[in-house]
Amino acid sequence: MRKSIATVSLSGTLAEKLTAIAGAGFDGVEIFENDLLASPLSPEEVRARAADLGLSIDLYQPFRDFEAVPADVLDRNLRRAEHKFDVMERLGSTRLLVCSSVSPDAVDDDALAAEQLRLLAERAAEHGIRIAYEALAWGRHVNEYLHAWRIARMADHPSLGVCLDSFHILSRGSDPGGIEAIPGEKIFFLQLADAPLLAMDVLQWSRHYRCFPGQGGFDLAGLVAHVLRAGYSGPLSLEVFNDVFRQADTARTAVDAMRSLIALEESVARRLPQAAALPVPPRPVVPTGFAFAELAVAGGDEVGALLRALGLARTGVHGGKPVELWEQGQARILLNAGEPAEDPSLAAIGLETPDPAGSVKRAQSLLSPTLPRRRAPHDAPLDSVAAPDGTALFFCRTAQPDHTSWTDDFTGASVEPAPGEITHIDHVALTQPWHHFDEASLFYRSVLGLRPQESLELADPYGLLRSRAMTNSDGTVRIALNVAYVGSHASHPDVSWQHVALASRDIIATARRLHALGGVLLPIPGNYYDDLEARHDLGPERHRMLRELGLLYDRDARGEFLHLYTVTVGRVFFEIVQRIGGYDGYGAQNAPIRLAAQHATADR
Amino acid sequence: MRKSIATVSLSGTLAEKLTAIAGAGFDGVEIFENDLLASPLSPEEVRARAADLGLSIDLYQPFRDFEAVPADVLDRNLRRAEHKFDVMERLGSTRLLVCSSVSPDAVDDDALAAEQLRLLAERAAEHGIRIAYEALAWGRHVNEYLHAWRIARMADHPSLGVCLDSFHILSRGSDPGGIEAIPGEKIFFLQLADAPLLAMDVLQWSRHYRCFPGQGGFDLAGLVAHVLRAGYSGPLSLEVFNDVFRQADTARTAVDAMRSLIALEESVARRLPQAAALPVPPRPVVPTGFAFAELAVAGGDEVGALLRALGLARTGVHGGKPVELWEQGQARILLNAGEPAEDPSLAAIGLETPDPAGSVKRAQSLLSPTLPRRRAPHDAPLDSVAAPDGTALFFCRTAQPDHTSWTDDFTGASVEPAPGEITHIDHVALTQPWHHFDEASLFYRSVLGLRPQESLELADPYGLLRSRAMTNSDGTVRIALNVAYVGSHASHPDVSWQHVALASRDIIATARRLHALGGVLLPIPGNYYDDLEARHDLGPERHRMLRELGLLYDRDARGEFLHLYTVTVGRVFFEIVQRIGGYDGYGAQNAPIRLAAQHATADR
Repeated sequence: MRKSIATVSLSGTLAEKLTAIAGAGFDGVEIFENDLLASPLSPEEVRARAADLGLSIDLYQPFRDFEAVPADVLDRNLRRAEHKFDVMERLGSTRLLVCSSVSPDAVDDDALAAEQLRLLAERAAEHGIRIAYEALAWGRHVNEYLHAWRIARMADHPSLGVCLDSFHILSRGSDPGGIEAIPGEKIFFLQLADAPLLAMDVLQWSRHYRCFPGQGGFDLAGLVAHVLRAGYSGPLSLEVFNDVFRQADTARTAVDAMRSLIALEESVARRLPQAAALPVPPRPVVPTGFAFAELAVAGGDEVGALLRALGLARTGVHGGKPVELWEQGQARILLNAGEPAEDPSLAAIGLETPDPAGSVKRAQSLLSPTLPRRRAPHDAPLDSVAAPDGTALFFCRTAQPDHTSWTDDFTGASVEPAPGEITHIDHVALTQPWHHFDEASLFYRSVLGLRPQESLELADPYGLLRSRAMTNSDGTVRIALNVAYVGSHASHPDVSWQHVALASRDIIATARRLHALGGVLLPIPGNYYDDLEARHDLGPERHRMLRELGLLYDRDARGEFLHLYTVTVGRVFFEIVQRIGGYDGYGAQNAPIRLAAQHATADR
Repeated sequence: MRKSIATVSLSGTLAEKLTAIAGAGFDGVEIFENDLLASPLSPEEVRARAADLGLSIDLYQPFRDFEAVPADVLDRNLRRAEHKFDVMERLGSTRLLVCSSVSPDAVDDDALAAEQLRLLAERAAEHGIRIAYEALAWGRHVNEYLHAWRIARMADHPSLGVCLDSFHILSRGSDPGGIEAIPGEKIFFLQLADAPLLAMDVLQWSRHYRCFPGQGGFDLAGLVAHVLRAGYSGPLSLEVFNDVFRQADTARTAVDAMRSLIALEESVARRLPQAAALPVPPRPVVPTGFAFAELAVAGGDEVGALLRALGLARTGVHGGKPVELWEQGQARILLNAGEPAEDPSLAAIGLETPDPAGSVKRAQSLLSPTLPRRRAPHDAPLDSVAAPDGTALFFCRTAQPDHTSWTDDFTGASVEPAPGEITHIDHVALTQPWHHFDEASLFYRSVLGLRPQESLELADPYGLLRSRAMTNSDGTVRIALNVAYVGSHASHPDVSWQHVALASRDIIATARRLHALGGVLLPIPGNYYDDLEARHDLGPERHRMLRELGLLYDRDARGEFLHLYTVTVGRVFFEIVQRIGGYDGYGAQNAPIRLAAQHATADR
């Protein structure tokens, strides 16, 4: 299907927006009137610019407060419309969005609304323009899409149809099934926006919190399926008002937007047999585990010392690059001293996948940038793409007979790592730039086929954090996305910590060893343990042991969770976790304790 | 009255919070449990720290989900309470906040709730602790304060009373008049928070948008008056959950908080005769006009050239400092080349006041920092304080027989400025750091006695701005506060423009002159005028003239507004305005046009 986007969905000037929209591969654009008004480009220049970029101008919007008014107001409104028809002719745009009125001038009279809209359509037709009438969710008298359709049907003019907007329909809880009763050719336009499910004033919700399909809680694929069954053949067009996107980089938001439409089209195609002709990307190849985590180490061996303390051993050195492999069990950490890095930081994640080439194809079809392979002649091929925050994702098959293994590049890897309690990487946590949180969620969901978990708020001493885990179905891949403060603290330095959580089969033993070493564990305040005793009765012996060893505790309906943190080196620290029973979380309840302790250590 | 604040209202560690709270002059503190849990200080150490700082620990909070539960849950809850009583004894705190339950374990049975709360009070009494029971606005069965009081009365134990929280009462629209039916000695605690009037889920509203009294839309003075009439004699205590305060500087937020309580206490005292014993600050001395605006000019005479173009003349030079006075009519601009400034910026505002010394006393009583006078021996005394964004406010009586005039310091000031259309300063607009917006509103309201006008959203190409004007009653002092983006644009440099708007008695003449000069006016796109013609029928002649001269137009129910902008020099630009009839706004509708044009110019 053709893909379009409203200019209001992006930051920047109209010219910057058009460039970014074309760059992301859209076919068309809705010109949001305020963007035109504020632009130094004349309508003719905008028309030429769009044509040069290969973009059709699919809609001019919005025209407000037109219908169901007294005669004198109608005259003024028709005069206003004629001016807009002139602008549209200069723009070369033939479709105008008319929103249901919110004006106190409007009366609750469908027949009058229909009569006046018919008059508007007649005038529009003289300019070759068609009117798409839309029910705003907060329209004064018309706020349901089927009500707008009844009025359009009553008006009965070939240049008058409806515009459907997923937000206006789904935010009110209207049943989108009724769309199928509207003849497809009378659906003049389809605007799409997702939104998180918030309980708030619908106008504020719409103006500030819309997001791209797949980033919120609405069933957009279901709605689009109804629209296609009705016979609609126009573009899928995004119209998103979002405070963050208004401030985010224009080009990357446009790519994020296009990714959302590709993924949406795929969902529709897979659930609607008659839409089988829709182009769909290759299916996601869901990763099955972590192959490795790669840390850029700036020099110094602090991270190596930490890994040694955790029980990992240096089992290999790369043949051509200053990269070390550290292992215990299936937990593998690469320390890369060859990449410029100010501080130790998490640079890459290796994911086990049944089909590395397929993983890359999926990522490419969803517009993920692939990375230069930076390979020495003898390196095993590593298929990789960049996540939104710049973290490299490598798709691997480690030590499988059907595929070259990245471990072959490491000499000395035939030395078996010493046995110990660490078994594998449980999860990695990435702090996202705050402009990229929704984009990152959609990326991991659509590109890797991971499932977003509940979005949590974590209290840091210097601001709130938002955290959301993306996981595969059996929990062998868990990526926690934390979003940094919205804006910076006024007087406190920003930190964007990242960490790798290693699973231990006996965290008590691991903790004892780390405790004995001294200086490795993040100190946990005694007040935490007083509160833990108040909340849970684990028996005096277990409480004493947790307190002594600095272990943190959580439980859910399915099991228990024991975890501990190392001190931080640069931007990086390690967590050791043990899941007992079916515990499926990350100890979010303990995150404020951890964050405060980290600040106390970092500020020293 | 004693003044207290909950630690959750501020950013930082518990130790940082206590220091800031004492520094702002509070008498006591509510210890928010999570702040204690995350602190490396033991309860004994917190107790000692608070005592050293002269702070009493007025409340420990919150204890959740206690009452109206089955017997086995009750046992667990009592065990949990005993642990908290231990912590409170170590802290030296004797009052515990118990919130009405939100647990699915709780049943809707007031008698059972009362019985179990009585049991809790008996246990508490053994530790010398009193229980303050509070109805959360989202409590499962108990969510109205009078319901909580009925249960406490039924429980009938001297160690059980209620805690009243203004947010929980006013957010539900409950009538606070009922408070007077509660015996004062059974009101164990009073928590105060204001909030903007938002239509949203009350829990989210409470957790993210509370603010200090006078910063939101609730009538807190009315509520406190009811509480005092009931006979309450405990502290006024702030409990504010606010995403911005969580990230703002700890010490300045504490001062902002204290200022809000001083102003609140004053409002209560003025409306409640029997509270006449309350200490009140001197009454505000509302400014009656602008004496001058002072710009720090970094060197170069770009600003002087702009002023000359606008028709102002250099009428004086300061006797001892490199400061020039420029005038036309009552519009006076100081150009100060003696202050270090990277870019030209607005450094100070002179306000006409009937009593400069009284203005300073008022400001000091509300904790505004006074400024060193930086006077040369012959300077007229200038009384000044610092606004939250650092702008200096000078209180002046210009050329009045009863007071020395600051203009006496300027030689050559006896030369009359050339006649022209500019009459006075209409308003100044200050861009606030985003952490300081609510603080700034409260400052101008409480210190200067200005009235906050409607809060507006303005679309900038690179993010939304919030704008709110503070004015005196006859509109002769208007200060517009704009808040910069929440966080920065991802790839666009921040700007924090400030401007001085000069009133013209004949803006057409002014515009003609500026237009003829060339290079002075901010260019306004033609599309704006096309839209203006669509929206208003001003006659072809007037439309042609507006377009030709680059004038912007707005109207409200009371009149018309014509305005134009100069180009920007550093952070500063000028606006020329003409109010026709009773127009009372600032042309907010045109702000996006102006902002886009400024970016286009600045980015060149």
